[in-house]
Amino acid sequence: MPDPVTAALVIIGNEILSGRTRDAKLTYIALRLIEIGIRLAEVRVVGDYEDQIVSAVNACRKAHNYVFTTGGIGPTHDDITAHAIAKAFDVPVARNPQALARLARQYDPRDLNEARLSMADMPEGAVLIDNPVSVAPGFQIGNVFVLAGVPAIMQAMFDGIKGRLKGGAPVLSRTIACYLPEGTIAEDLSALQERFAAVEIGSYPFFRLGRFGTSLVLRSEDAALMARAADELRSLLTKLGAEPIEAG
Amino acid sequence: MPDPVTAALVIIGNEILSGRTRDAKLTYIALRLIEIGIRLAEVRVVGDYEDQIVSAVNACRKAHNYVFTTGGIGPTHDDITAHAIAKAFDVPVARNPQALARLARQYDPRDLNEARLSMADMPEGAVLIDNPVSVAPGFQIGNVFVLAGVPAIMQAMFDGIKGRLKGGAPVLSRTIACYLPEGTIAEDLSALQERFAAVEIGSYPFFRLGRFGTSLVLRSEDAALMARAADELRSLLTKLGAEPIEAG
Repeated sequence: MPDPVTAALVIIGNEILSGRTRDAKLTYIALRLIEIGIRLAEVRVVGDYEDQIVSAVNACRKAHNYVFTTGGIGPTHDDITAHAIAKAFDVPVARNPQALARLARQYDPRDLNEARLSMADMPEGAVLIDNPVSVAPGFQIGNVFVLAGVPAIMQAMFDGIKGRLKGGAPVLSRTIACYLPEGTIAEDLSALQERFAAVEIGSYPFFRLGRFGTSLVLRSEDAALMARAADELRSLLTKLGAEPIEAG
Repeated sequence: MPDPVTAALVIIGNEILSGRTRDAKLTYIALRLIEIGIRLAEVRVVGDYEDQIVSAVNACRKAHNYVFTTGGIGPTHDDITAHAIAKAFDVPVARNPQALARLARQYDPRDLNEARLSMADMPEGAVLIDNPVSVAPGFQIGNVFVLAGVPAIMQAMFDGIKGRLKGGAPVLSRTIACYLPEGTIAEDLSALQERFAAVEIGSYPFFRLGRFGTSLVLRSEDAALMARAADELRSLLTKLGAEPIEAG
């Protein structure tokens, strides 16, 4: 089997760390990456501090095929992502002429103040990422894609760059749930996992309507193998007295 | 000013990275830490893989006063957190007698199988964290607190250990919103930030009811200073033609 294609997401912003804003980006990006055969393998949430952004981006871009960052590319004093990424790549920041042209088309000259112009400042060599919502572009440098933090803009930017990403074989998944606690299933499940090494079996307990249950998620690139593992899992749950529930 | 007391959260679980489960832990922990004067400074989400857990925990426990982990302490084959934490601290795993006694009180002897017994396996020297929901305890070793992944259990465990944490001065916060785009406010805001260095000013754009707006969050340990900065911010927004909205 070839190595899986992996990605990391670096979410930049004190507003997530303070609990003020609930993150909506992880799920969006994770689900869309899976569709194109890329596995989100790591997420880091860091504050609006240059050293934190630099070290997270540098660790992630070495460890994964792709890195996506969100946040910190607006016009205010706390928007420091472009400078931090330039530092991570050890290149200077320059005003990107294409980005500048887009801002000039969007804004009345009286409104195009220095703060807005600074949204065209990017690491030298960066390639633009379109922003169909509010114009000010994101950018790509190396394997790092720098996206906006506002969810609607981040999503539009991400959809625009999907064509630049090269995934591996899509990973299929299947979820079977039951109202048995994990501890009752654990030993049979472990034996099943050993027999199906190429099917990753995850076990996630839940507490719903006053009862403990478990969601079992099978993941594999091999549809036939996964179908066999799912059959055995259903038999195993039935043998333990539970009704297997197909949950997606 | 003394150094701020900081914490990191390491969320362990493929189910978050796959986008299957939306994380509910970050916000809960962030808000409760703020109440006791601790700043959540970093979050990492890693998969159920020993090397990822070890490296995240070791990086975070050196950089922060406290580390909280969630997930991976159940009875199934993919619950590897206790072993990974022992490896991070370079200590052996042992069956904790107190944890064992709690499990023995909870389960009928016929149900206390090897999988459930394994929930008493912990790094040597670990101190238990109570689990008032489903008994199997979490544990603390050094400055690392190992909590369950199921939100209701994680929350109950966290509430139980709050007394073990020593925070700094509580950080106060105040949010003022307006229907002006960030680019219009940015330059005046930057000048305000320069004059109030001990008040951290965050600027968060939003798009609501078809209009662009900005939430401005002031944070400081000094209530009087923050009140002065808030007054100036309101004047600034009024001068720019917006109505300042008190948003918390």
